[in-house]
Amino acid sequence: MFRRHKITVIGSGATGATTAHMLALKELGDVVLVDIQEGIPQGKALDMWESGPIEGFSLKVVGTNDYALTEGSDVIVVTAGMPRKEGMSRNDLLKVNAEVVHNVVAAAAKVSPEAVLVVLTNPADVMAYVAQKASGFPHHRVMGQAGVLDSARFRTFLADALKISPKDVSAFVMGGHGDDMVPLVRYSYAGGIPVEKLLPKDTLDQIVQRTRTGGGEVLSLMKVSAYYAPASSLAEMVKAVLLDERRILPVISYLNGEYGETDIYVGVPAIVGGNGIEKVIEVDFTPEEEAAFKKSVASVRGPLSMLDLTKSS
Amino acid sequence: MFRRHKITVIGSGATGATTAHMLALKELGDVVLVDIQEGIPQGKALDMWESGPIEGFSLKVVGTNDYALTEGSDVIVVTAGMPRKEGMSRNDLLKVNAEVVHNVVAAAAKVSPEAVLVVLTNPADVMAYVAQKASGFPHHRVMGQAGVLDSARFRTFLADALKISPKDVSAFVMGGHGDDMVPLVRYSYAGGIPVEKLLPKDTLDQIVQRTRTGGGEVLSLMKVSAYYAPASSLAEMVKAVLLDERRILPVISYLNGEYGETDIYVGVPAIVGGNGIEKVIEVDFTPEEEAAFKKSVASVRGPLSMLDLTKSS
Amino acid sequence: MFRRHKITVIGSGATGATTAHMLALKELGDVVLVDIQEGIPQGKALDMWESGPIEGFSLKVVGTNDYALTEGSDVIVVTAGMPRKEGMSRNDLLKVNAEVVHNVVAAAAKVSPEAVLVVLTNPADVMAYVAQKASGFPHHRVMGQAGVLDSARFRTFLADALKISPKDVSAFVMGGHGDDMVPLVRYSYAGGIPVEKLLPKDTLDQIVQRTRTGGGEVLSLMKVSAYYAPASSLAEMVKAVLLDERRILPVISYLNGEYGETDIYVGVPAIVGGNGIEKVIEVDFTPEEEAAFKKSVASVRGPLSMLDLTKSS
Amino acid sequence: MFRRHKITVIGSGATGATTAHMLALKELGDVVLVDIQEGIPQGKALDMWESGPIEGFSLKVVGTNDYALTEGSDVIVVTAGMPRKEGMSRNDLLKVNAEVVHNVVAAAAKVSPEAVLVVLTNPADVMAYVAQKASGFPHHRVMGQAGVLDSARFRTFLADALKISPKDVSAFVMGGHGDDMVPLVRYSYAGGIPVEKLLPKDTLDQIVQRTRTGGGEVLSLMKVSAYYAPASSLAEMVKAVLLDERRILPVISYLNGEYGETDIYVGVPAIVGGNGIEKVIEVDFTPEEEAAFKKSVASVRGPLSMLDLTKSS
Repeated sequence: MFRRHKITVIGSGATGATTAHMLALKELGDVVLVDIQEGIPQGKALDMWESGPIEGFSLKVVGTNDYALTEGSDVIVVTAGMPRKEGMSRNDLLKVNAEVVHNVVAAAAKVSPEAVLVVLTNPADVMAYVAQKASGFPHHRVMGQAGVLDSARFRTFLADALKISPKDVSAFVMGGHGDDMVPLVRYSYAGGIPVEKLLPKDTLDQIVQRTRTGGGEVLSLMKVSAYYAPASSLAEMVKAVLLDERRILPVISYLNGEYGETDIYVGVPAIVGGNGIEKVIEVDFTPEEEAAFKKSVASVRGPLSMLDLTKSS
Repeated sequence: MFRRHKITVIGSGATGATTAHMLALKELGDVVLVDIQEGIPQGKALDMWESGPIEGFSLKVVGTNDYALTEGSDVIVVTAGMPRKEGMSRNDLLKVNAEVVHNVVAAAAKVSPEAVLVVLTNPADVMAYVAQKASGFPHHRVMGQAGVLDSARFRTFLADALKISPKDVSAFVMGGHGDDMVPLVRYSYAGGIPVEKLLPKDTLDQIVQRTRTGGGEVLSLMKVSAYYAPASSLAEMVKAVLLDERRILPVISYLNGEYGETDIYVGVPAIVGGNGIEKVIEVDFTPEEEAAFKKSVASVRGPLSMLDLTKSS
Repeated sequence: MFRRHKITVIGSGATGATTAHMLALKELGDVVLVDIQEGIPQGKALDMWESGPIEGFSLKVVGTNDYALTEGSDVIVVTAGMPRKEGMSRNDLLKVNAEVVHNVVAAAAKVSPEAVLVVLTNPADVMAYVAQKASGFPHHRVMGQAGVLDSARFRTFLADALKISPKDVSAFVMGGHGDDMVPLVRYSYAGGIPVEKLLPKDTLDQIVQRTRTGGGEVLSLMKVSAYYAPASSLAEMVKAVLLDERRILPVISYLNGEYGETDIYVGVPAIVGGNGIEKVIEVDFTPEEEAAFKKSVASVRGPLSMLDLTKSS
Repeated sequence: MFRRHKITVIGSGATGATTAHMLALKELGDVVLVDIQEGIPQGKALDMWESGPIEGFSLKVVGTNDYALTEGSDVIVVTAGMPRKEGMSRNDLLKVNAEVVHNVVAAAAKVSPEAVLVVLTNPADVMAYVAQKASGFPHHRVMGQAGVLDSARFRTFLADALKISPKDVSAFVMGGHGDDMVPLVRYSYAGGIPVEKLLPKDTLDQIVQRTRTGGGEVLSLMKVSAYYAPASSLAEMVKAVLLDERRILPVISYLNGEYGETDIYVGVPAIVGGNGIEKVIEVDFTPEEEAAFKKSVASVRGPLSMLDLTKSS
């Protein structure tokens, strides 16, 4: 009578596999890891499934090259795409990843027509748009990941500077996931106290800058894109959907008039629950923040205009 | 070589026992539940110890009437005292509980001279003062619980009004734990957004009032004092100490000049870590908040002056 | 689109309330605590709901006197009934509890016709039979709790005697939950090693005897029936159902020919999953075990024959 | 006063990094990831540290090339070494890995003289011996990982064949981690029932064989050695030590007369607690099992005799 939730993760690279791992550890549902590469999804899924007796989960983790096995998924996480290489801008990845995302989403959505889509592939704001077109899903059932990760980095750096636990730091980041992201210092707190009262301005400026280039910092050290914090971010979003948590999270959401924008996916705070994006939250901007947000929106519209999305449903 | 942490919970009533239960479930250490009543601590400890195979903890939970068994504890939680009955003010409990707290703390501190003390017995601000005197411990190793609970209630009501997860609501409460507590709406946020922007003033006023009388609301319904949320609050503080988390929590802390006050225990935000209270955080007040805080401090000084603490070390 | 699971717990005494608490802590679903007593379920539910911001759950816990609020529950846990008092045999409770169980189950089943029923009220084997009749549910959707608790106690005592973690002790107990329960030493292991090889026979005999009287031991100490380990046992069963875990657990299951018995609920190992009881597992008995099991079955048939179940649907 | 535990993981490849990740997720202590490669440990540690705000841990995860930062560690996990490549026997790795292990352990042990060592580098039985010599630590503070992983695979396959949760399957594996490992069907149970009663012999034979070649199965699929289940295995052992759990686990332990063997590290069931290996458990063998165990021991002695360990302390 009861069945477990079923979650498909597309892409068995480090991010996709780590996401599958986190989903299993959190007992959120059976996990299908799907990739075009032969052996990799099967091997990684087998390996993590074999940790079940130790970690205490009763779930199945399966790897496959066949979308038929993803049928009836409740949530589909899209991590497929070329990883960003050192020195490569996020936009360089655009065209190749748009085609990859279009194809994998079309294949997955066909057999799981009721799923919620969570897109990580970079640039995630553009790819969320592509994914929605490829799936034909209502906009609220398609979202992108960027702000949960960016905020986690922002919170980590703030907590480190304050020498306190990150549990008590709240912070958020709006706009695109690239250099145009907008970490909102004004809306960032430690134990409820505005961080502006706790840290000097130049420290905050450095932290904002480090947050903006947080992906690059990890990349330049380990030569591949970050995957641990991204996987945690995706799992957090999947959990918010499957448990209908109604979290307020900074996510890439479709705007239909909010913030004066239409027909675009961009990072904003939104309520995430059982229907996907339940509601976009509009916050007040200072003129400076407004400008930064608009610049960020423009950095999404540009790439979108370069793509031929007419073939999409 | 490694030994588990050891935590003593004094008082095997509903709050003490539920606290012991939470500590075991979180695998924070072996737990000793001590009470003057015969059988009760032994029975409750045995019952929760027997849940170990199901919950997956390898700890020992022991009940006793003998402080010798608490020897070498790392943290001592004080819940002993007469419960507040309906219609009884918190101050009515004062004298009887001061004597109880003095005696149990003296007995426990003697055999665990390096422990951190966490006091819940009401009124907790006064009792923290009594506990410090009875133990002779440095002030930073004695703290009281009030604000973690009050904040949890405040956050619950805010989340409920906003129809969102409480995970994304931060809020805090200062001052005494009685009717004089100071829920700071200005420092309360949902997903980082000031709640003042999200909820109308009269709703916020009702929530502040409900928070202030939150203990009474539960009491009037179930005829005994709340114990689930208090136990979670205590376990959160114990964890912050044992794992040296450096949380910013609203706790009852000794003031030695902070906020212009000396020689008093009162609820303020503080960093809680491996040394107990690591640092009191001073926040800016509006004149109205300042007045409320001062009133709250006065409501602690009054009862303190009624007690004869000369017998204490 | 996704909704949380909904679990009703009938009876807001210590066992029912602690079960509700465990279900919320494990994030298994929204919890409705229902009782005929006014205020108690509301107060306890409010208190545990207020721990959500600390424990990190986004669920709702509600208390009520009205079965209408339990509508559409996925699982219904039945703890209502008179508690066993010291000196009272389990069978003394029979008639009064049979009527209570009949009434509450009829009321709850009416508004949640697809639920799985988990019965704790003592004697649980008899009450499971009553609950099935009162609900009219298929037998596989009605089960009773006894063996998970008895096994937990058995494992705790074995681990204690061996001075090892209970995580590595497996053991099970069959038959009734009373003095006729059958702890199977032959099927009990520590780290996979038969306990008969690790402990002397007289120690094992004492442990078997202590297990059989485990409920009484706690009762005689704390003057009320055990509730922590029982609540963990119930939560374990609810989780096995809601996550379709297909656990092998010792549960009170309807027998339809298994073990040569029909039309009776009795404690046996069974696979518990999304359909409730998925399959009864038949184990080989020694003649001595066979006799003990038959005696245990008889101790269920006796009380059943005393009850007038004709009024049941 | 309280400080967090400190755990050093040597080797920042997939296994070492995933182990560090699991240790942080379980809040077991601050983690130092150390490797000779520049950037990799720093990048991976940074990435997982940045997941702290999401996963809710207050720990620090640091990557370094400098053993000075590992000073004062409580546990040291050794994963450094060349990975096994497809077609390569475990013994092929011997000499190169012995030198690596000798050097890293000598460097780490020097600054953490009180630590417990847990060795994964293959062949782990030989490398545990090397590590003990290099550290000069008492034998009980050096152990190797093999059986926890092998048992997890065995349990996974048994649970899958039985279509039940792996939580209820216990099983263990003795001897070497290579093709000579000894999965003990006789000591394997599902819900306490011997698996020999539940599955036909040919199915069990296939499962035993699949367990023996479990590492190779994952390797042949994903082209690199397994790391998820190995990391969970290591984290399980570290937790058993740091929380003094006294688990019975199948671990690579020094034998000093047990099983008639001396001066060798080999996989046996042992109690693992705060002192490391607390006690080796001796189980009865059938003649066939005895022969398999002796063969397994021989497969450890052979490689050991090839190594020049005279330079070790």
